[in-house]
Amino acid sequence: MDYQGNDIYCDMIIPGKMTVEVIKETDTVIAFYHTQPFWPVHAVVTPKRHVASVLSLVDEPELTQELLAVIKEVSEMIVGQTGACRVVTNLGEYQDSKHVHFHLSSGEPLLNRPEVYNRK
Amino acid sequence: MDYQGNDIYCDMIIPGKMTVEVIKETDTVIAFYHTQPFWPVHAVVTPKRHVASVLSLVDEPELTQELLAVIKEVSEMIVGQTGACRVVTNLGEYQDSKHVHFHLSSGEPLLNRPEVYNRK
Repeated sequence: MDYQGNDIYCDMIIPGKMTVEVIKETDTVIAFYHTQPFWPVHAVVTPKRHVASVLSLVDEPELTQELLAVIKEVSEMIVGQTGACRVVTNLGEYQDSKHVHFHLSSGEPLLNRPEVYNRK
Repeated sequence: MDYQGNDIYCDMIIPGKMTVEVIKETDTVIAFYHTQPFWPVHAVVTPKRHVASVLSLVDEPELTQELLAVIKEVSEMIVGQTGACRVVTNLGEYQDSKHVHFHLSSGEPLLNRPEVYNRK
C-alpha cells in the first residue's frame, strides 16, 4: 500500500478507495480490521468525518458517545474472543494519521515488520 | 507498595491513603503521575467516583467530557514536553485496576521491572 499522505481515513478508506474488512458501521463511525496489523487482533475505530485528534473530541460530545458505543461493541467482541483488549489513541509524533482513530488490539506485538518493531 | 486489591483508585488514591503527585484535579476527575511508571513520562487520568471501565462511559456523557478535558490538558502538556503522547485504556485481562483509568505516556517502555517487561 503506497499511500503517503497523512489522513488515510478521509483520503482512502471512507471514500472506499481502499478495501477494508468492516466490523461495524453507523452513520458517523466505522470500525474495521487494520490491513497491516500490529497485533494478532487489530481493529480501528474512527469517525467518518474529519476530526483531527482525541483533543478535538472535547468539543464533540455527541460524536464522542457514538465512538464510545462502537468501541464498546468491538472491544466486547475482542474480549470475548481473546480475554483482553487495549484501546489506544496517539498524539503528536506518535499519531501517524492526523484523523482521530482508536486502535483496539489483543495479543503480543507482531514484530515481523520494521514499522512495528521500531514503533515508539 | 503492597496494595493487593483491584481498585487502587477508590481504595487508596482518591481517599488520600496513598500519596500521588497531582497534575490536575477537578470536582470529578484527577490526573497524577504514576508512582511506578512504565514509561519515562507516565500520567494517569481517572474519575473520582467508581466507573468500572471505558465501556461504562457509554452511559456517562457528562463525565466522559470531563475526562476528555483533563486528558486534553495533560496530554498537551506531555506533547509540549516530549513531542508525543499515547492515551491507553485497557479491558479484560489487560485491565489491572477495575476502575476506568487512562494511561498518558511518552518514551520507550522502562523494562527494569518484571511487571513492565512481561506486560502484555
